[in-house]
Amino acid sequence: MNGLTHFDQHGNAHMVDVGAKTDTERKAVATGRIRLGAEAYAALKAGTSKKGDVLGVARIAAIQGAKRTSDLIPLCHPLPLTRLAVEFELDDTQCEVTCYCTAQTVGKTGVEMEALTGVQVGLLTIYDMLKAIDKGMVMVETRLVEKRGGKSDFTSV
Amino acid sequence: MNGLTHFDQHGNAHMVDVGAKTDTERKAVATGRIRLGAEAYAALKAGTSKKGDVLGVARIAAIQGAKRTSDLIPLCHPLPLTRLAVEFELDDTQCEVTCYCTAQTVGKTGVEMEALTGVQVGLLTIYDMLKAIDKGMVMVETRLVEKRGGKSDFTSV
Amino acid sequence: MNGLTHFDQHGNAHMVDVGAKTDTERKAVATGRIRLGAEAYAALKAGTSKKGDVLGVARIAAIQGAKRTSDLIPLCHPLPLTRLAVEFELDDTQCEVTCYCTAQTVGKTGVEMEALTGVQVGLLTIYDMLKAIDKGMVMVETRLVEKRGGKSDFTSV
Amino acid sequence: MNGLTHFDQHGNAHMVDVGAKTDTERKAVATGRIRLGAEAYAALKAGTSKKGDVLGVARIAAIQGAKRTSDLIPLCHPLPLTRLAVEFELDDTQCEVTCYCTAQTVGKTGVEMEALTGVQVGLLTIYDMLKAIDKGMVMVETRLVEKRGGKSDFTSV
Amino acid sequence: MNGLTHFDQHGNAHMVDVGAKTDTERKAVATGRIRLGAEAYAALKAGTSKKGDVLGVARIAAIQGAKRTSDLIPLCHPLPLTRLAVEFELDDTQCEVTCYCTAQTVGKTGVEMEALTGVQVGLLTIYDMLKAIDKGMVMVETRLVEKRGGKSDFTSV
Amino acid sequence: MNGLTHFDQHGNAHMVDVGAKTDTERKAVATGRIRLGAEAYAALKAGTSKKGDVLGVARIAAIQGAKRTSDLIPLCHPLPLTRLAVEFELDDTQCEVTCYCTAQTVGKTGVEMEALTGVQVGLLTIYDMLKAIDKGMVMVETRLVEKRGGKSDFTSV
Repeated sequence: MNGLTHFDQHGNAHMVDVGAKTDTERKAVATGRIRLGAEAYAALKAGTSKKGDVLGVARIAAIQGAKRTSDLIPLCHPLPLTRLAVEFELDDTQCEVTCYCTAQTVGKTGVEMEALTGVQVGLLTIYDMLKAIDKGMVMVETRLVEKRGGKSDFTSV
Repeated sequence: MNGLTHFDQHGNAHMVDVGAKTDTERKAVATGRIRLGAEAYAALKAGTSKKGDVLGVARIAAIQGAKRTSDLIPLCHPLPLTRLAVEFELDDTQCEVTCYCTAQTVGKTGVEMEALTGVQVGLLTIYDMLKAIDKGMVMVETRLVEKRGGKSDFTSV
Repeated sequence: MNGLTHFDQHGNAHMVDVGAKTDTERKAVATGRIRLGAEAYAALKAGTSKKGDVLGVARIAAIQGAKRTSDLIPLCHPLPLTRLAVEFELDDTQCEVTCYCTAQTVGKTGVEMEALTGVQVGLLTIYDMLKAIDKGMVMVETRLVEKRGGKSDFTSV
Repeated sequence: MNGLTHFDQHGNAHMVDVGAKTDTERKAVATGRIRLGAEAYAALKAGTSKKGDVLGVARIAAIQGAKRTSDLIPLCHPLPLTRLAVEFELDDTQCEVTCYCTAQTVGKTGVEMEALTGVQVGLLTIYDMLKAIDKGMVMVETRLVEKRGGKSDFTSV
Repeated sequence: MNGLTHFDQHGNAHMVDVGAKTDTERKAVATGRIRLGAEAYAALKAGTSKKGDVLGVARIAAIQGAKRTSDLIPLCHPLPLTRLAVEFELDDTQCEVTCYCTAQTVGKTGVEMEALTGVQVGLLTIYDMLKAIDKGMVMVETRLVEKRGGKSDFTSV
Repeated sequence: MNGLTHFDQHGNAHMVDVGAKTDTERKAVATGRIRLGAEAYAALKAGTSKKGDVLGVARIAAIQGAKRTSDLIPLCHPLPLTRLAVEFELDDTQCEVTCYCTAQTVGKTGVEMEALTGVQVGLLTIYDMLKAIDKGMVMVETRLVEKRGGKSDFTSV
């Protein structure tokens, strides 16, 4: 099947068998950015510093979203996550917020999808809180940064 | 609060009062892309044309994800969606898949977040099915394309 | 598309547009049976009459399951149900339990799937509580009994 | 309590203690059928062969439904499934579709309910997509086919 | 049935029929308190004023929990909430936090359970974040404060 | 951070790393009470003895609610519970119902939140079924009774 492991020899989607894999420590870090207009970016910064904590709300949404990954992504295995952390970085020049989500487990499959789902839900939540000000925001460059445990490690350039 | 309607005068997050708004027809279209390596793109195309229908699975995930929007985005109102449609376009030159999600309701608030959430869950599902082949995929440019109904319409350039 | 309204003209699955439909009173009744071995049937009857209220647990599961219908069935519209009722009938001769689920709403689409989902979750819950005694139980004949409201009414023979 | 292990000595429902059980490989296969009228059956076949992939949608719904089992069945333990596979067989003579769902885990309790729930959600999803054509469809004979691991194995005749 | 409207004339639980009720504006306010030890209370205050925003996290949890009410409370009707707001008050003398949750909808049934569920989830979330310091915390006096719309209004003394 | 382990050194909420902890048997018992007016209390007792089994419904809700803990409490780890039991005690003098919820797992973190969540959902469900009779009910004194496994045991006085 051209390397499409999520489909069997007949081309039917399935949740692949990971029963024979050993439980190992697994970690994944994903990142993504949202690009704001100047007004929305200013509102986000004003909010974050004192009241109207946009990033605080987005962080909780990202953590809860990452825990829902196997509910959202049909062929993902349910996994008991042992750690979730979400960081944000602000870039005043580009009017951008970068979100990092780190997921960890001790289990039979990797946690890339959990980290990536956390990032996307976090960015969507920022979007939601600023969309009254700015309808032109763009979520850009969500990707895997690092993956440890399992068959092979990965670090993006 | 600098236009941050999702926070009250004390800076506390809330789900804003839409009770006085009238029920009107609302529509939103969002889009986003995933950029694949050549091998993953070839596998996706091979799967789609015959067996291993990656985009068919992603479409269902996007539709189900859009229905979970108010569960995922903390300050979103629950909405009885009246329509959801998801389209994919393939770009052989860029090795990219573009996802479009259209959401509609007859209700008191817009459905931008539902359309955007559908796109992000659709792209994440494509990522999941191809990640065994390619760990360098990037989800790019998720944004609102069109919004009808409510206070003001919006169409992106 | 041969009458397959859940697919568009390109053959892609979608949640069909019901935005132009009027809100009307809708009602559906579904039914299904579970056939038990003599021992499991006796245990269920003993439990129901005094303690170990199998049917009481199954009724709650059926009601909660029916409320999750649009989460479970990909192309179902979310609906604010206005009534759910679940009845059970015991047939001592056949060692069978029949489950009836009635769903109602005031909305734009029918509630057949809600009634049918309620029945299936109710029967599965009975199965779960008796499976330690009997692994040969069979869930049979789940079907729509009645449908009111919408384009056309339906009553099964 | 007449063998009703899901109820304590006072007759109260509980989720039984499986803490002392060892983690072993567990597998269950369940099956069920849906009987269609000739027109609905023809539409399903036409859809499946090219566009309007009814069974592809039902397969994803079955997999996602099986992952929700402990949410739906009150006294079921949550389980990290290690494999889910769903197959369909078409019977042109009877106008029937048979659904098979295989669930596996490495855990302390069996996965019969996961396999059975997958089958029922798969059949409900087929029903949903064909109900505009046929309101007389019947879901028949959902039962356990095979169970491995745990106290005792089981294979149906 | 002694005024137990959630049970029918045979004593069986059901989700009562509200289909004939008119959609009116409904509002409910609930409140509850959590009593902390001196050390946990100090940690909460230190966190809230600068970093470690316990109440910010609890507010989001309360809002999301209130939206899940019909999922959690078996006989509750699903309701499209139009507003949710959560406030906290600190009592330095008693080392207590009071949570207020206001829920509103335009619908056929009241939103008392949504307001009460929001309070309980908010208090549980505070408990969770402070339980490493204090295992003797107590959640006390959760009750309805106000109810508007529907058959009768209510205000607690 | 003043002992607030759910926040990192920058004051940001996270789901703490439990990956290095060993899987041990964990148990927690929580309790809480609901105080009813005389009429509501009489209705509950009348229902419980024969038909209209308020406590039977509340027990199932408590069990299902406890299984949803990590969905509801943002920084809680998902845990595969191995046992859940819910008991009720009636106090005719005070017109009170006491709920006890016992949760157990073999895992890396404690199950206090699961036991406490079970109690709160159980009490909310009782409230829901009696609120047509009594709007002055109060949920009081929800707290941890016992905790075994992990770093330190705990028993309340």
